[in-house]
Formats: sequence, C-alpha cells, structure tokens
Amino acid sequence: MTAVRVGVVGVGMMGADHAERIAARTAGAVLTAVADPDAARARELGDRLGATSYGDPLELIASPEVDAVLLASPGFVHEEQVLASFAAGKPVLCEKPLTMDVESSLRVVEAERRLPRPLLSVGFMRRFDPEYAQLQGMLAAEAFGPLLVMHQTHRNRSVPNPEFRSEMIVRDSLVHEVDCARFFVGTEIAEIQVITPRATSKAFEGVADPQVSIFRMSNGVVVTNEVFVNCQVGYEVRAEAVCERGTAIAGRPQTGLYTTRAGEGEGYWGGVAFDDFRQRFGRGYDLEVQAWVEAATKGEVVGANAWDGYAATAVCEAGMASLASGESVSVALVDRDSLS
Amino acid sequence: MTAVRVGVVGVGMMGADHAERIAARTAGAVLTAVADPDAARARELGDRLGATSYGDPLELIASPEVDAVLLASPGFVHEEQVLASFAAGKPVLCEKPLTMDVESSLRVVEAERRLPRPLLSVGFMRRFDPEYAQLQGMLAAEAFGPLLVMHQTHRNRSVPNPEFRSEMIVRDSLVHEVDCARFFVGTEIAEIQVITPRATSKAFEGVADPQVSIFRMSNGVVVTNEVFVNCQVGYEVRAEAVCERGTAIAGRPQTGLYTTRAGEGEGYWGGVAFDDFRQRFGRGYDLEVQAWVEAATKGEVVGANAWDGYAATAVCEAGMASLASGESVSVALVDRDSLS
Amino acid sequence: MTAVRVGVVGVGMMGADHAERIAARTAGAVLTAVADPDAARARELGDRLGATSYGDPLELIASPEVDAVLLASPGFVHEEQVLASFAAGKPVLCEKPLTMDVESSLRVVEAERRLPRPLLSVGFMRRFDPEYAQLQGMLAAEAFGPLLVMHQTHRNRSVPNPEFRSEMIVRDSLVHEVDCARFFVGTEIAEIQVITPRATSKAFEGVADPQVSIFRMSNGVVVTNEVFVNCQVGYEVRAEAVCERGTAIAGRPQTGLYTTRAGEGEGYWGGVAFDDFRQRFGRGYDLEVQAWVEAATKGEVVGANAWDGYAATAVCEAGMASLASGESVSVALVDRDSLS
Amino acid sequence: MTAVRVGVVGVGMMGADHAERIAARTAGAVLTAVADPDAARARELGDRLGATSYGDPLELIASPEVDAVLLASPGFVHEEQVLASFAAGKPVLCEKPLTMDVESSLRVVEAERRLPRPLLSVGFMRRFDPEYAQLQGMLAAEAFGPLLVMHQTHRNRSVPNPEFRSEMIVRDSLVHEVDCARFFVGTEIAEIQVITPRATSKAFEGVADPQVSIFRMSNGVVVTNEVFVNCQVGYEVRAEAVCERGTAIAGRPQTGLYTTRAGEGEGYWGGVAFDDFRQRFGRGYDLEVQAWVEAATKGEVVGANAWDGYAATAVCEAGMASLASGESVSVALVDRDSLS
Repeated sequence: MTAVRVGVVGVGMMGADHAERIAARTAGAVLTAVADPDAARARELGDRLGATSYGDPLELIASPEVDAVLLASPGFVHEEQVLASFAAGKPVLCEKPLTMDVESSLRVVEAERRLPRPLLSVGFMRRFDPEYAQLQGMLAAEAFGPLLVMHQTHRNRSVPNPEFRSEMIVRDSLVHEVDCARFFVGTEIAEIQVITPRATSKAFEGVADPQVSIFRMSNGVVVTNEVFVNCQVGYEVRAEAVCERGTAIAGRPQTGLYTTRAGEGEGYWGGVAFDDFRQRFGRGYDLEVQAWVEAATKGEVVGANAWDGYAATAVCEAGMASLASGESVSVALVDRDSLS
Repeated sequence: MTAVRVGVVGVGMMGADHAERIAARTAGAVLTAVADPDAARARELGDRLGATSYGDPLELIASPEVDAVLLASPGFVHEEQVLASFAAGKPVLCEKPLTMDVESSLRVVEAERRLPRPLLSVGFMRRFDPEYAQLQGMLAAEAFGPLLVMHQTHRNRSVPNPEFRSEMIVRDSLVHEVDCARFFVGTEIAEIQVITPRATSKAFEGVADPQVSIFRMSNGVVVTNEVFVNCQVGYEVRAEAVCERGTAIAGRPQTGLYTTRAGEGEGYWGGVAFDDFRQRFGRGYDLEVQAWVEAATKGEVVGANAWDGYAATAVCEAGMASLASGESVSVALVDRDSLS
Repeated sequence: MTAVRVGVVGVGMMGADHAERIAARTAGAVLTAVADPDAARARELGDRLGATSYGDPLELIASPEVDAVLLASPGFVHEEQVLASFAAGKPVLCEKPLTMDVESSLRVVEAERRLPRPLLSVGFMRRFDPEYAQLQGMLAAEAFGPLLVMHQTHRNRSVPNPEFRSEMIVRDSLVHEVDCARFFVGTEIAEIQVITPRATSKAFEGVADPQVSIFRMSNGVVVTNEVFVNCQVGYEVRAEAVCERGTAIAGRPQTGLYTTRAGEGEGYWGGVAFDDFRQRFGRGYDLEVQAWVEAATKGEVVGANAWDGYAATAVCEAGMASLASGESVSVALVDRDSLS
Repeated sequence: MTAVRVGVVGVGMMGADHAERIAARTAGAVLTAVADPDAARARELGDRLGATSYGDPLELIASPEVDAVLLASPGFVHEEQVLASFAAGKPVLCEKPLTMDVESSLRVVEAERRLPRPLLSVGFMRRFDPEYAQLQGMLAAEAFGPLLVMHQTHRNRSVPNPEFRSEMIVRDSLVHEVDCARFFVGTEIAEIQVITPRATSKAFEGVADPQVSIFRMSNGVVVTNEVFVNCQVGYEVRAEAVCERGTAIAGRPQTGLYTTRAGEGEGYWGGVAFDDFRQRFGRGYDLEVQAWVEAATKGEVVGANAWDGYAATAVCEAGMASLASGESVSVALVDRDSLS
C-alpha cells in the first residue's frame, strides 16, 4: 500500500498545524508539498518538514508529486483552489467555510456533480470529535426516542482582532453550530433568527457579542444557540439534545478535576478550561485527517460534503440578514434533486 | 415571643404539605386552622394535626385564632381570599399564580397600596432554594461582571391530566421561569416569544410540549427557556447565567453518584433523578415558609411581592398570546409609579 | 402539644450555634436556659435569646424549666453532666465524643441500662446529613448487593491551634469516620491500624498530618480512611461504598458550578469549596436537633446511642495505640449482652 | 525518512490489536511481520494485514525485514524474546509484565546494561494516557506542593476464567498500580501490604476479590489501592493525589452525560461505563506505540524502562508474599548503582 502524498495550501496557524499532522501523526500519508503566496514562509515550513514549497497554490495542486490537497487558505480563494483540485482529479479537504457566498458554494456543488465521483470534504472537524460523533450516533439510532430540541453553546476566550465585526460571529463561529445542527438533526435548517442581547464591554465597540440564535429545522426540531466569542474564560463548546425519553450532552468541561486554594482566596474545586479550539478539538482534527487519508486511498470522501458546505453558507447568509433586520429569515436552498 | 398562629386555606396536595410544614417543621409558628370547601377533607386534616377546620375559607381568614393566612387554594379564588386577608389586616402567603388574569392581579396590587403596610407574599419558592438564592446573590453583586444571557430549563416527568392544554405550560410552568428571570436579572421582561418545536408523542394529542421561549429583558439581557413537562425522566430545573467574565449554573443533577449494572444491560454511572418539584424544592418550601413566619412577627413581608405576582401574570398573558400567534409579544405593565 | 423546653450547656461556638438553632429554627422546642462556667458569657447569650442563664451546668440540668438537655461542653465534663441528666430523668443530646476514655464511656452505658428507658443521644450529626442517610439506606437495603469495601475521606482547611497534637486527629476527627463506618457497615470495628505518611509542612512541627487508617470490620468489610486536617483547600467529607454490583458515593463537591477567569491567570471551571463543617453539615445539625426534639416528645431517642458512643471511644483508644506503635490493634469491646 | 518496519510477536487479542494499530494508525511505521506458535493464526492475520507470518517468534526477531519488535506474547517467554531482540540490536516494546519472576527481570536489566544503548520499553500504557500524563506532570512540578498520599482504584467488570487465582490480581492487575505509584511519586516502593476484605460472591470460589493494598514509598508517601476485578459494572481506573495545597484526580467517569428513564424504573442521569481497558486506554495505547516508533527512529526509548519493569516485578513478588502471610512485606531491590 503506497502512502498518499498530501500537499497543504496555506501555511498560517491552521495550515502549519495540518502540515505537521500529515508529516508526523497521520498513518498512510506523507507530506510532499506546501504552498503559500508568502513563498518565504512556505519555504521555511517545507524545509523543516522535508516537503517541496510553492509560492503558487495552483502549481502545488497540479504537481505530480501531490495525490491529495488540503486547503487551509483564506475563504475567498477556496472556490478557485477547489475547482483546480477537481480539474486535477484530486481529493480535496477544504477548511470551512467552503466559500464566502452562496453563489460560489453552489458553483462548487454543481462542478463536483459533473465529476465521475465526489472529491470534496469540508473541514467541519466536530463531526470527528469522539463525543460529538457518539452523540450523533445516539440520535441517529433514536436511542432516547425522537429528537425534539437542541441547545448549543460556543464560547471563545477572546478575539483580539480590532477589525472584527458582528457578522463574523455568524459566518465564522455560528457556521459550526449550523453544521452541527444539520449533523445531529439530519435535516435542513428552514429558518434562522439571530438575536443580540446586551453586548459585553470586553468586545470591541459596536460588536454584538454574545449572540443567541434560533434554528427551526425542516422537521420541526428547534435549536437554540449561544455564541460568545469574548467570554474571557476559555474555549467551551457543548451540545445538549432533548429527546422524547431522555437528554444527552456532549462537551461538558471534563478534563481533570482538582481542589486547591490560591493565596489568601477561597478554596475551590474545578479544572482548567480549554485554551482554544486547537486544544479542544486536536483529537478531532487528527481523526478527521486520518479518516480523509484512508478514504482517499479507497476513492471515497468522508465528513461534510459539498452540499453540507453549500447549505452552511446559505444558512449563514440568511443569518447575516437576520442579524441586520432582527427578523427570522427563511433559508432558501436550491432543489437538490434538480441540480444539473 | 408568641408563636404566629397560621391558617391554611386549601387542603389538596400543596395545602396538606404546607399544613404539615407549619405543624411540624416551622419554628415560631403553630397551625391553628385549615379550611376547604370540601369540609370533610378539611376536618380529617384538622383532626390529625390538632387544628380547627372550616368549610368556608373566608370564615378561617376572619377567625381571631388566625394571625396569618397561607393560601393553597385554586388560582380563581385567590383574589377574593387575598382581599379578605387584607381586610382582616393579616399577612398572607399566596401560592402562585397570584390570580388568573392581569386585571385581577392589578386589583390586588392596588388594594395592597391602600393598606398601611404590605401584607402579601407570592409563593415563588425557588427564590428560597439555596442554589438559586446563591446564584441570585452572585449576579446582584456582579461577581463575574454584568449579566448578558440566561438559559433556563424546566422539565417534569409527565402530566397525567387528559384536560391538560398547551396554554397551561405557559401559565403554570413557564410562570416560574418568568419569576426567576425577573429575580436573577432584576428588571422587567419587555417582550416574550413562545416557540413550539416538534411535539413529543408522550403528551396528550394536541399539546405543544416541549416549548422554547425567549424573554427580552428591559435592560437588553436575553433569556432562553425550555419547558418540557412530559420529559419522562424526572424533575430537572436549571439556570445558567452568562456574564462578562464567567458563567454560573444552579441546579445541576447532583444528589448522590453511583455506578451500577442492571441485569444484562450496560454498566453505567449516574444518580437517580428527582421525582418531582416537592422533592427538589422541599428545602426551598421549608425556608420560604420559615422566612415568611419570621417576617410576619416583625410586620414585614419576604419573597416575591404583589407587584412580582402581577408582573408574572402579565408576562404569561403575553406568552399565551405569543403561543397563539407565533409572534413575539410586548409586555405592557402599568406605570408602577402612577399607581393609586 | 406543648413545646419541649431545652437547656444548652456550653456556650462556645458549637453551643451558641445550638442555642440559636433551638431558639430560631427548631419546631416544637423553646430555648429556656443556657449554662457555662463562664457565667458572663452565658448571661450575654441568654439575654440575647430570651433564656435564663446559669454559671453552674448542673443547676441548669436540675432546673424545672428544662425538659431536655443539649451538651456542647468539653468532653471531660460529659460523664458528670450526662449522669446528672439521667438522674433528672431528662433526654440528653451529648456532642461527640461521649467521654474522653473508654472506662467512663462504659460507665455511661451501664448507668443508662439501669434507667427505665434510654435517654442518651450522641451528636454524630453525619447520620442526619441527607446524602449520608441516603447512602446508609441503600447499603442497609443491599441495593447494590453486599458491601465489601469503603473509602472515607475527611479534610479540614487548617487547625490553627499550636497545642494541637497527632492524637487529636484520631480522637476528634477520625472518630466521625469510626461512627460512619459502624453506621454504614452495621457491625463493629474489630481492628484498626493508623499509618502516618510523609507529613505536610503546613501543620505544626511534629504533627502527623495526614493520616491513613484501615478498619477491619467484624464481618470482613475493610474501610480505608484519609484524615487530613490541614489540607488548605476547604472542608471535604466523602464516603464511597464498594458493593458486589455497584458503587456509591456520598459527599462529592457539588454546590454550584461555574467557569471564570481571575486576572491574568488561566480560565477554570469549578465551585467554591465548603469552608468548614458548620457550612457542610449545617443542614445535618438542623435535622438532628429537630429529630431529637420530636423523639423527646414521644419518650424516644434517635441517632447514635450510648453504645455507639462507647464503641467510638473504644475504637479511637485502640487507634491512638496504633498511632504510637505503628501496628494494627484489636478493639476489645465488652460483651454487650452481659452488661448489667 | 524511512518508515520503521515493525514485527509483532503474539497474535492473541492484544497482539492483534497492536498489529492493526501499527498497520493502520501509526505514522512512520509499517507492519512487516507477525509471529505466533499457532502458525495458522499468525498466517491469517498476516495475510489480512499484508505482513509476513512466522510460526517461530525468534525467526521474526532475527528477520532483516524487521527493524523493531513488539512483544504481545505470554509473560513466560518474554525473557527469551527480549534477549533475542537485544542480540539483534533491535528496539523492543514488551507488554507487561516484563517477566514472571524477579530473577529473570533482573537478568534482562543486566543484559541491557551491556548493550551500547538501551533498547527496551515496557508496555505500561497508562503513562501515555493524557489524563495520567497530565497528573504526573502536575505532581512532578509540585503544582499543589509536595505529594503526601495517593488513592488508586482499579475495577474490571469481570474475569470469566475459572483458572483465575487471587495471586493473579496482584501480578496482572495491581502491577499497573505499582507502576503508576512509582510514576506519580517518583521513588521506589519500600513496603507493600495486601489486605483481603470480605470477598464478592461474583468471583470464582476461593478468589480474594476485591483487594486493598497499601504501598509505603521510600520518601514516606503512602498509596492506598483498591483492585476489584469482578465489580460487575465496567472498567474504572482512577488516581487521586493529595498534596500539601490541593488534590487532583485522574480518571473520573466522564464520557458523555445523559438523563433517561428505562421502562417502568426510576429516571436517572448518568453515562455508560467503560467496557474494558482497551476502550478506556485505547488512546493511551495509540500514543504509546506512536511515541515508541518515533523514539526508535532516533535511537531512543520511551515510557517505562527495564528497571521499571524489574521494580514492578519485585514489588508484585513481595505483594504475593503479603497476600499469603497477611503481613506488610519489604521490597528488596538490588543496588541500582552497583549493577554490572
């Protein structure tokens, strides 16, 4: 069995992580190439990990030394790079979001349908987190009866970027809840409403953080969401499912438990919060990339597919409209069966 | 110090509980009288607990052997009995709801304002639960900074009554969340929206259970609520507060922890769920009644007051309108300062 | 039903607590008298709570205005005061330890057997803690099959007394574990071994803290105990029962749960530890005293009895011998059936 | 970088697991060979995983297509196979126990010292479990001050083997606690005592299960251990460290949390217990084998070394003597510095 030769596009934090993951922790894969418009940075990483470096991502995608492409580039170049991977006939794992708007996401879906077989996976890594996967399995099996309501919570410690705007909470953070809701419930989101409570003073002026969102799924399930990206404490992601005969939670704060007393303060018991998503979902990323490589050797794809990426983009677009208007907004998806 | 002589009106499950509580577990109080239109039932309880029994509640309220009145009668007779207690100049603890509609609740508020001093407490017992009280104290002190969002959960095992209708979830169950939201946030509810997800098949035909409700508080805090009265598992009530610098939860499932294995099934770890509200809030009821008796000896009232009872009724009335229309409904309270 | 008139002997921290408890939170009881050799201190408390004060405890015990006696005096005067209560024919609740040595405890047991009916309760309040009582009920019912092993943990924040010696950990702290082991297992302790690990530097020089002790019960159950009275964090008391088909824990750290981030440090999740035994077992004390008063009105006793007090003293005496020798020491109890 | 070619000896449950792990989930490694005296079974596995199969383990160890050896054979052949790996100059990961008696373990230690560099790792996988590793890191850094006491718990659902004897609880189960105590405390075990409580009726006749053991470490730390291999519930392994300024626990039951109600029974909240050690420590095994392969490429060893394996065998031998005599038994290790 020959190893899959992977090329990574984009060498920022996520891309460098993925390159290390392929090089050191993914069975059946070798890292052969990295690319970034910042060619010096690509070269530095490539040299360190023993991979060829490219300044032009399209050159990497076309290279005969690359069997499969992992895109960790910014969202606005995803369409071009995914389509180039399709043209080269190579499996491609594209970090979320699939693209920046619904039209381009739909073009990707349509382009893939013209291929002999699907090639695209979208990097919604939570589907590979052991707890999230276990919860989805329980729900799919209706272990506690039909699902009726879900409550999702998504908290980040802080966003230090002064350019950050309220819409980015919908597009970059809530998008994970959108994918999870579809993953857990197994149907589309019919309607979305984004509500803005009193804003934290810890966010930059004018940023509506936290946000509470309501999804109405096409089968009647209601999903409540809290996204709070400047919560100050740490990274915490949870999902609680309410079914006819029981409830289940994934993502409780659970690593280690201790009691202590710091200085003159009160004694307390507790545990250290997760620092960020890489710490919380590190295992999920590992399992995602491993599963993608294994699928690639069999000519298959795993995880969220092109349609999932398109649907997430469409829901977030409706969510941004709701954020602006304050009203509940219907999500209009194209007819899946009538796609060319 | 002479003991406060308490008369209990209504000897159904709640009233009998309260009579026992006064007789056996409340310091500084004696049970002198019980009343119920079902005179035989009142007599049986009175005989057992050494108290005079009355078939006419108004006779009990007027009796010289009663210093303070505890109303556990049905909501539709509350107005008359509260006003009779006012006329007799006696402190009265009225089980929720204060009355069945906003006009009558307002009449009670206005009647009390014409008295030399307040006499009414409304039986929202959660305010006396140690965990709920601790959480409220933390929020009032802004221990983790200003409050931004709350999530409240209210689950009952089941409602066996075939007469039960969707509106009763708003009026009898959500009313507790309404009072808690006002208690935790410290402001009024400006707007309420009641959303009906896919209904459980375990409820009677046509009952919209569970329900998800959104409160927008007048200071911008948003409160999400899940009420599910046929959840099958047990009684579970929780409140999670999301503040600028931390989050806090009251009401985690916490009594006892064990591991076991039943028959041929899987091993599991866990604890027995609370059976019902009397088990979960038994301690809260004890503390509420004890505090009420102590306040009575000082000519004071404690807990939720007449205005709190009126506001809860008004919010639930708006909630029932929202349940019917599906729209968010504004809550119109009278101007508190202009009350006669 | 006339209220039980209670006199409290000893007005240190425990005694003052109990006097308040009788005066303010115990139904069916009134506080009529307090006594302390420090007559001024007794007077101050008596005046505040509306009770007669005595400088001579024996005078209080004999007083016709006292129906029942609560002893919160130091252990070395317990024998005399308990015997005086017996002579007066009055129910007496004696704080632990029953007496300071096994001979005097045995004299108390024998003296009570010559009375027409038992009058003594020993203040092992944990038996009234709801969680401990629930666990004991499960074990007595063999809900998870026969009990095989128990693990008990007992931690205090610190002992500021420079006179404190290693033996006092056995006599004053481990004595609770001794009573709990007998309460949970339902048999006597046959053998005790006290082991001294590396000592904490936070204790006074020469104090062997923490201590690990092993009880071998007469039915073969083995009980491990950790007592650590300078653990710095807070008060934590736990018991884990290991049965043939499951395990159960009483006393997990469970009140409130929050996440926060203090200053520049790490975010954490957790809860505030209990401060001391009065906070942790305040409810247990309330229930104990209430049950004792109710039993007194029926001519009965509740909780740990004279024999339980004697057995605890005998085990602790063996424990102190083991602490000195490092060996396992047999506990020799008199033949219960042959008692005069 | 060339992949490390691994040969697995022994194709029972553990060996087959390891072979799959090397073949499918270990980066930088390929499975080239499997061996078992049951040649047919070896062939079947080898054919399925694309590896050469051998009936003679020594032939595999000597084979030029094997760079590193993983031993999952029975303990009584470990000495011969480890020494053969040494002779071949190949890194070897030997499942615990190192050997069946202290003399042979010592021979392995001495043989390795005559090699140019260490080649042996012993498969105490808990050292690679993320929680256990995190706890060890906290203790090594004295994050909560010096360690004073540890409590370790080790429960298996059941042992269906009728040949099972009490000694095997010491040699095969307690051996993990022995290694963990040495790992956490960082010193040797000076003395061990094995205590046998009332035995469960769920074990085969004559098997002393559960067992409580006490380790006295050479620095004074005391470690209590419960091992219960027929606990009926599931697999549960925990370690609680008691330090001068705080306590910490690894291994709480933590995966998933739900509430439900089965049939007519009580509602409960909880989670499914782990089924067995492979499920609980699957991640630990993956990390162990990955770390071993990475170390092999650098000419290094990781995890428990030959001395750790020898010390564990010596402690268990003393433990079996204590099980027989009921007395505390000193552990006599050779002088590490005077080893040839």
